[in-house]
Amino acid sequence: MQMSHRISGFQCSPIRRLVPYAREAKKRGIHVYHLNIGQPDIKTPAEALAALSSFPDDIIAYGSSEGRDDLRQAWAEYYNRFGVGITSDDILITTGGSEAIQFSFMTLCDPGDEIIIPEPYYTNVASFANIAMVTLVPVTSTMDECFVLPDIGEFEKRITPRTRGVLLCSPNNPTGHVYSPEELTALLEMCRRHDIFLIVDEVYREFCYDGKTFISVLAYPEYADRVICIDSFSKRFSMCGARIGALITRNKEVRDSALKLSQARLCPPEVEQYVACAAFRAPATYLEDVKKEYEKRRDFFVARLKKIPDIRVSEPLGAFYLVVEFPVDDAEKFAIFMLKDFSHDGSTTMFAPAEDFYVTKGIGRKQARLAYVLNTGDLAAAADCLEAGLAAYRKKYMS
Amino acid sequence: MQMSHRISGFQCSPIRRLVPYAREAKKRGIHVYHLNIGQPDIKTPAEALAALSSFPDDIIAYGSSEGRDDLRQAWAEYYNRFGVGITSDDILITTGGSEAIQFSFMTLCDPGDEIIIPEPYYTNVASFANIAMVTLVPVTSTMDECFVLPDIGEFEKRITPRTRGVLLCSPNNPTGHVYSPEELTALLEMCRRHDIFLIVDEVYREFCYDGKTFISVLAYPEYADRVICIDSFSKRFSMCGARIGALITRNKEVRDSALKLSQARLCPPEVEQYVACAAFRAPATYLEDVKKEYEKRRDFFVARLKKIPDIRVSEPLGAFYLVVEFPVDDAEKFAIFMLKDFSHDGSTTMFAPAEDFYVTKGIGRKQARLAYVLNTGDLAAAADCLEAGLAAYRKKYMS
Repeated sequence: MQMSHRISGFQCSPIRRLVPYAREAKKRGIHVYHLNIGQPDIKTPAEALAALSSFPDDIIAYGSSEGRDDLRQAWAEYYNRFGVGITSDDILITTGGSEAIQFSFMTLCDPGDEIIIPEPYYTNVASFANIAMVTLVPVTSTMDECFVLPDIGEFEKRITPRTRGVLLCSPNNPTGHVYSPEELTALLEMCRRHDIFLIVDEVYREFCYDGKTFISVLAYPEYADRVICIDSFSKRFSMCGARIGALITRNKEVRDSALKLSQARLCPPEVEQYVACAAFRAPATYLEDVKKEYEKRRDFFVARLKKIPDIRVSEPLGAFYLVVEFPVDDAEKFAIFMLKDFSHDGSTTMFAPAEDFYVTKGIGRKQARLAYVLNTGDLAAAADCLEAGLAAYRKKYMS
Repeated sequence: MQMSHRISGFQCSPIRRLVPYAREAKKRGIHVYHLNIGQPDIKTPAEALAALSSFPDDIIAYGSSEGRDDLRQAWAEYYNRFGVGITSDDILITTGGSEAIQFSFMTLCDPGDEIIIPEPYYTNVASFANIAMVTLVPVTSTMDECFVLPDIGEFEKRITPRTRGVLLCSPNNPTGHVYSPEELTALLEMCRRHDIFLIVDEVYREFCYDGKTFISVLAYPEYADRVICIDSFSKRFSMCGARIGALITRNKEVRDSALKLSQARLCPPEVEQYVACAAFRAPATYLEDVKKEYEKRRDFFVARLKKIPDIRVSEPLGAFYLVVEFPVDDAEKFAIFMLKDFSHDGSTTMFAPAEDFYVTKGIGRKQARLAYVLNTGDLAAAADCLEAGLAAYRKKYMS
């Protein structure tokens, strides 16, 4: 009895392939610094945690498919603080940003339709494309160019009658690039020219460094009919496990279509929506402090990594990831070595080989994504491991 | 800019079509008895609600994609209390039973593949089929035969090279039928003969009346390789809004394949999994009392409905729904009349027209699903409204 072709086409992500090695390392008593996933070590706002005790109902009943009114209202107010005019009607609460991406694909695309995406990209998008049977068409951004948006001509070249839209992630996972207003408007203009959609995953919006203000794709009402914004509480309020995201669009047809998908699965988790609502009541200093902390980590970590011989490091402007290029033959082989055959002062470092962050085969084999979600002390120790491990690996395999 | 064909094929369910009329009725000050949805009025177990205050972490972090270990362990123990040997490895926690049905379809079926389903059936399955682009092939069960499982020959006749499985719901939504061990084994045997799967939605398992013991499809280990069981906390513990379900299978390939879908969406809601775990600590009397309460409601409501002239009522053996056949031309027209043009002592009754519970067009036009999720006092008043409304409707439209 065979499984579906759809499922057989799923690839196990490199991070998951490494998990058994990490487990084994821990069994051997080795401490593993986890730079492999974007699980922040920042505390969830106290307001949100306190709300757990004040859930007012004695029945955890079905909520509305579009999400709780109070949460949609609070989310619209959050946007309006940045001068982005959004009403609660424009917001569909989803079970994580993941569901919002899936809903976007399902709403816009039939099987075989195409979505253009700059690579490297957030790998789970490949799974969402698989589920919706959508073809991801890559445009490569390069470390040489600091992962800026490739020339609009590169996007335009890839447009076919099956192209339904472009998916951008800004601030970017995995590169840390924040697309400039110029890059964004050029892309919007191209989408208008070809009558396609622009989906922007802005879940890292609050993590934008160097005093820069992040400009949301929602700040361009003149393109409103072709814009979908993906949002989430996961990283912003350190609530990854709460699975509270949103699909935001001023295009009523997209909204009503996505609502049909919402109705099929009845409602997003009610308790966690209630908790999310309380997170919006956290003082402004919560997000400011978190941003300062990540900026400090970025500054520290980028400077420290650059001291490792022959390594190349991206210059992240936002989010909490960076891409490195190791002086090795294969970053996944190096990652396995780090977990399987190496330790430094009883510790080692786990990171995500970047090859699967590319649709195009063969690019990024030497690259890895590092999430700076640890405090600077741990980041220093993790970098020490990396440096020593790299030397050991090169000595063993490359000399 | 068109939406996908997939989305355009979605139908608005009759229940949703009625919502605006119900809203208008409420605005006119009319009380509406909601027999239209399966939202129990029973309280969530105190143990579960209390757990909200004791969530131990100060970060709501990503959990594992297969669900919390403690919850899977507790769920396996729950099964083992009935002598069904299930290990936590056989259990994938899903975001509601809804996600478990979607995962089953995605795992087993490519677009155009077929799932055979007895009708009337739980309408949202049509949406899940739409999302996975699966064709539902109906086998009609009839009120004349108390909605028993149609003859196995009827299933067999519908098997094609594209058939991947049969989806059963027992105790049944909407009919209340509980499939007998004989019906189940005959179906399992047929599935083996044709090398297809049997998916059984058992979310109403605990609501099985007349002293009968429910026999789970998991109680037949000899068919384990072709069985998927759908389970959920929603109705059992009155936690519909918590979105905690499960896909349970001893087939490792199905389990590993569904896990890929789980990994794509990262994890189920963590807080609500923690709460669900506590619900398992409710005393056995919780479920016993709930069952007694529903059985009392069923006995009362069926007897009362039968006193309405010319009405036909199914004999539900389980769950908390029944199907009625009204002496009208069109149950949806009657439902709209009840909300729009009728009230009795300031109240009216809302129910779900059954036509969309059938894949086959034209069947069930006179039928409706009634959920007996109200206390007997309210059920009495709702039935009074129905009886008076039916007389008024027939006088206006049918005399």
